[in-house]
Amino acid sequence: MSYDKAKVRQILDEVKKAGRDSLTAPEGKIVCDAYGISVPKEGVVSSAAEASKLAGSMGFPVVMKIVSPDILHKTEAGGVVVGVKTADEAASAYDQIIGNAKKYKADARIVGVQVQQMIKGGQEVIVGAMTDPSFGKLVAFGLGGVLVEVLKDVTFRLAPATKEDATSMLDSIQAAEMLKGVRGGDAVNREAVTDIIVRVSQLVSDFPEIAEMDLNPVFASKTGAIAADVRIVVNFEQKPARYRPDEKDVVTSMNRIMRPKAVAVIGASNEAGKIGNSVMKNLINGGYQGKIYPIHPKEAEIMGIQAFKSVKDVPAEIDTAVFAIPSKLVAGALKECGEKKIAGAILIPSGFGETGNIEGQEELQRIGREYNIRLMGPNIYGFYYTPSNLCATFCTAYDYKGSTALSSQSGGIGMAIIGYSRSAKMGVSAIVGLGNKSDIDEDDLLLFFEQDDNTKVIAQHAEDLKDGRAFAEVAKRVSKKKPVIMLKAGRTAMGAAAASSHTGAVAGTDKIYDDVLRQSGVVRAKSLRQLLDFARGVPILPTPKGENVVIITGAGGSGVLLSDACVDNGLKLLKPMPDDLDAAFRKFIPPFGAAGNPVDITGGEPPITYMNTVRLGLEDDRIHALILGYWHTIVTPPMVFAKNMVQVVNEMKEKGKIKPVVASLAGDVEVEEAAQYLYENGIPAYAYSTEIPVEILGAKYQWARAAGLLPK
Amino acid sequence: MSYDKAKVRQILDEVKKAGRDSLTAPEGKIVCDAYGISVPKEGVVSSAAEASKLAGSMGFPVVMKIVSPDILHKTEAGGVVVGVKTADEAASAYDQIIGNAKKYKADARIVGVQVQQMIKGGQEVIVGAMTDPSFGKLVAFGLGGVLVEVLKDVTFRLAPATKEDATSMLDSIQAAEMLKGVRGGDAVNREAVTDIIVRVSQLVSDFPEIAEMDLNPVFASKTGAIAADVRIVVNFEQKPARYRPDEKDVVTSMNRIMRPKAVAVIGASNEAGKIGNSVMKNLINGGYQGKIYPIHPKEAEIMGIQAFKSVKDVPAEIDTAVFAIPSKLVAGALKECGEKKIAGAILIPSGFGETGNIEGQEELQRIGREYNIRLMGPNIYGFYYTPSNLCATFCTAYDYKGSTALSSQSGGIGMAIIGYSRSAKMGVSAIVGLGNKSDIDEDDLLLFFEQDDNTKVIAQHAEDLKDGRAFAEVAKRVSKKKPVIMLKAGRTAMGAAAASSHTGAVAGTDKIYDDVLRQSGVVRAKSLRQLLDFARGVPILPTPKGENVVIITGAGGSGVLLSDACVDNGLKLLKPMPDDLDAAFRKFIPPFGAAGNPVDITGGEPPITYMNTVRLGLEDDRIHALILGYWHTIVTPPMVFAKNMVQVVNEMKEKGKIKPVVASLAGDVEVEEAAQYLYENGIPAYAYSTEIPVEILGAKYQWARAAGLLPK
Repeated sequence: MSYDKAKVRQILDEVKKAGRDSLTAPEGKIVCDAYGISVPKEGVVSSAAEASKLAGSMGFPVVMKIVSPDILHKTEAGGVVVGVKTADEAASAYDQIIGNAKKYKADARIVGVQVQQMIKGGQEVIVGAMTDPSFGKLVAFGLGGVLVEVLKDVTFRLAPATKEDATSMLDSIQAAEMLKGVRGGDAVNREAVTDIIVRVSQLVSDFPEIAEMDLNPVFASKTGAIAADVRIVVNFEQKPARYRPDEKDVVTSMNRIMRPKAVAVIGASNEAGKIGNSVMKNLINGGYQGKIYPIHPKEAEIMGIQAFKSVKDVPAEIDTAVFAIPSKLVAGALKECGEKKIAGAILIPSGFGETGNIEGQEELQRIGREYNIRLMGPNIYGFYYTPSNLCATFCTAYDYKGSTALSSQSGGIGMAIIGYSRSAKMGVSAIVGLGNKSDIDEDDLLLFFEQDDNTKVIAQHAEDLKDGRAFAEVAKRVSKKKPVIMLKAGRTAMGAAAASSHTGAVAGTDKIYDDVLRQSGVVRAKSLRQLLDFARGVPILPTPKGENVVIITGAGGSGVLLSDACVDNGLKLLKPMPDDLDAAFRKFIPPFGAAGNPVDITGGEPPITYMNTVRLGLEDDRIHALILGYWHTIVTPPMVFAKNMVQVVNEMKEKGKIKPVVASLAGDVEVEEAAQYLYENGIPAYAYSTEIPVEILGAKYQWARAAGLLPK
Repeated sequence: MSYDKAKVRQILDEVKKAGRDSLTAPEGKIVCDAYGISVPKEGVVSSAAEASKLAGSMGFPVVMKIVSPDILHKTEAGGVVVGVKTADEAASAYDQIIGNAKKYKADARIVGVQVQQMIKGGQEVIVGAMTDPSFGKLVAFGLGGVLVEVLKDVTFRLAPATKEDATSMLDSIQAAEMLKGVRGGDAVNREAVTDIIVRVSQLVSDFPEIAEMDLNPVFASKTGAIAADVRIVVNFEQKPARYRPDEKDVVTSMNRIMRPKAVAVIGASNEAGKIGNSVMKNLINGGYQGKIYPIHPKEAEIMGIQAFKSVKDVPAEIDTAVFAIPSKLVAGALKECGEKKIAGAILIPSGFGETGNIEGQEELQRIGREYNIRLMGPNIYGFYYTPSNLCATFCTAYDYKGSTALSSQSGGIGMAIIGYSRSAKMGVSAIVGLGNKSDIDEDDLLLFFEQDDNTKVIAQHAEDLKDGRAFAEVAKRVSKKKPVIMLKAGRTAMGAAAASSHTGAVAGTDKIYDDVLRQSGVVRAKSLRQLLDFARGVPILPTPKGENVVIITGAGGSGVLLSDACVDNGLKLLKPMPDDLDAAFRKFIPPFGAAGNPVDITGGEPPITYMNTVRLGLEDDRIHALILGYWHTIVTPPMVFAKNMVQVVNEMKEKGKIKPVVASLAGDVEVEEAAQYLYENGIPAYAYSTEIPVEILGAKYQWARAAGLLPK
């Protein structure tokens, strides 16, 4: 695609010079022409006679519209006449429009009346672009008219959008079916529509001063797509781009911070109950093997370790400094850390942005930038990095090592993460508090965890993204390698208001987050518990090799609910079950067991029936994932079932048959122990729930599809 | 409203006589006229000349349409010309339509061409009616065109619909906003639209042979609503109405069954592992105080109790007989139960409908009807009724008494209910297995629990409703007194297929279930776990007296997620917080605590801050419900928080300040114990979840609104 950037630059310069904040329709047409965006034939006239003549030359019907820099909402001003069919009608329409415009705004500067070829037929769609404070330039697509206005059926992508992004937009709206032709109508030309989307997204990316752009409507037909109306709003006051260190530098710093050889505790204390005491205890009791340097103005020793008055007095390199001092002392100590070339400051203290002390927080940011020291927080619980046995926090030590890295913006949510993890014995590699996010944020963590071999999945709670674009760009790459899961709080207007009162975060509309996170391959959790369940289950499931899911259940009732859950979570049941496979399953189950999928082995079956059918499900290459529905009976007690399932899965694993398996357990309280056993042995399993195990499998699939690991 | 039933009867008789299964357009018009449903002026012509004349007399433009009993899809046949503007155009349209019709179907009987006044402007809507196998006559409403066809944006109610039902339909569609006028358009006349809905629903109720009716489109404008096209399909083969005993008889039987003075166990056994042995053990160990009569062909005594060869040998009245014998022996024993005038047979045995033995099941149904003995099952685990210490089941005894009555169609789901209930120490009044539902079904249970003072909430799992209409009618009344909660499995096409292979149930479309359950005041659970959480939490919450919810939280992060959950669950936060109330809260919290709602008391506050703010929330009459967000700190440990909250709630209760309170606990594992304590003391509380407690409060509100206990 070739674009005439010079032409657009010229128009924008003129608009800027004139001090205007929007383009006239003719200017819009020139810009569209320069970027190869189809628009109707048109011209501007200054008299009724000219109107008749021009309209006649382009063929009737035509649309006529007021051209005035002072009238943005033309219809409201009575400045639009559609369906002008003759030269005489054109003349009288001219007079009518000028008359209305003067009535609407007596002092409006009137350039003339635009006469435009009237495009009819096809499907009305809308292509637009906007500027989001967090994500920057976005391109939008929806169906014209009420569908966008009433149902808000619109989808967004980061601009510039690739052809693939644009194509995905056509399928992302609720009314996608409309584009395929309904009631015998023609399907729209998808190429032509995606072409416009790509061009618009490139235009706003090339010219950041284009704040908003609307092509509404675009008439999309079998043969092509033409934008019938163009509206472009500009803003020449660009806010400076957010500072982002080089990715390599981020990784270097983050590696020093998260895997330090030496940690200083500023405000270390011998006094129980003090944060500086808790941090020291956690470092020591957590089993951290690096050097610990307590910093204290007076004490010679803290908890038996030699203390120093300042980090500058420490006769060795320090990587990470944990702050446990009052807010007013932080800036001074941070400077010393900078001079000591410490990589990162873990700013536990509160009393900054969250209490309205914006200046204090900005001072820390300035010091951080000046000395190239990265800041975590302030207003956080600290962080855990289990591969180093590092508990750099005042919370209790965490001891189940594993491959999930979690983070939270809020301390309360962080505590919930710690509690759930411990209760479920979830193995984690890290738990990180981000708090006010004065510096280190979600994308810094992504960059670290991307190259951290101890981490297999990244689960984050966020109330806002300070730099949504940076996050999306990093997430798009990282999510190809490791699942990235996000709970975005403040989804609703009420939630966003709460977020704003809480952290000063400005929440974008949720639909934008939804679309951009999906575009970036991020799996979105719907709730706190789901974030935690995904964090626990997704990393232990192997990646499926195809879409064919089979349910094997002892309880028909579970089979029904599991099937519902498959649909809800975008999973595809292998259906119809191939005849030979159906026959093979039938061999193992009673004659009245249900055919097909779910494989209903019926209640009251002995352990061998579960084993035979699950073994078959793992063995056959046409099946890619299994969902088990267990029904507690005397014949097959819960722990017997659990141990048998683990045995079969391991046996098949040795033969190279590695597939995701999840389980739903219906039964008396003993199923809780069985579920825990299954989980600890690689089979995410839940008692009294048919939906949660399927949601976890659904999350794994969603990630695998976005990462390109499954056929589309 | 007055209806000319005789006129409709006459038309339908003619259609029946002619052996047709649909009405012609003129017949449709007569039917509409008879029921006061507005339709355009029209007439049928048999020549081009007549067409010109008639069209001229009613005023242009007109629409012209083929009239033929053999052509149902007129547009497809080229049998429709719209926008006929002159007498000449009318003549040529006539010829064109007749020509097309002959081409489309050479042997079509052609009655003539209908000339119809063309209605324009306003909003196109659709009003329709249909016959559902479970719910019977339903009336449907949606927006015309693509909104119904592509987005399936349509809503249903049981016919006949009241004016209130009809009004609620206008607000139940996604695009409800359209009816209020968009882009400066007029709002539609809601009276006129609801009037048509009510009339259509009455028509199909009065004439069950009307199988389907479509008014599409109906043009709804500021001034009125006119149906531009009418399609009526008839079916004169009515299936006989399902037998339903009189409600009083149902209650009499169910009371005897559920609260029996004497229970027989048919197939009682001394042999451990046998179902008849488990049932005996459960009856005895469960503490049932009535008479137990073991029935066994040979044994003189079972578990120390005198046995009989047949129920007929028992020298006293028996209310309930629990069957624990092979399927082939059931019919014989059931007859004896009938002769003994036993009220109900608990048919645990499988081997009937679910294995394809339809005949065997029908035989039981015949016997049941003949002897007036009600059947529970077959293919069930039995039932528990805790107020009588009655465990008439082979599952383990259940011992937490309470006020929730649960039932399940599936045995597996029943086991999950038992397990969850025991694990959560949920107090239940009953757990009932319905299995194949050969007789006793969900509405029988509703009738029993309605008048059972031991039951405060009814929670049911169902895969189908054999008689959705009967259920809806009973539920509508019962739900005014006690919350009725339903998990409807087989929501999705795949789930419905699984349900059908499992129990032979034919699932209706889920949207119908959704609308009719809501119309009946039933709260629908989205998942198994949600059914269980609702069953546990809803009965212990007092009914709120108004809509104003306030969140009080120690963790700002929880406040954001709790706010999101409020929106998701239809709860209204008190906003803006009245100035005096805001000031009153502020007195108790640090200066940097967040204003408004959520009340963010900030982390690290002592117990007294939680107590003061919660006390204020309970005291002030402008606040109707509280959501608490707890953050685990050393200053306020979990159990201290829990005990304090219970103390404050009880203290205010004594002062008559009774409000629903739920809690979300973020913290280390100790919060689990605190949540359990809170729950057991009247505050539904969850660890590591911000959404579940809010969902429970939302369910209580949804019920209270539907029951008319809250201002609308």
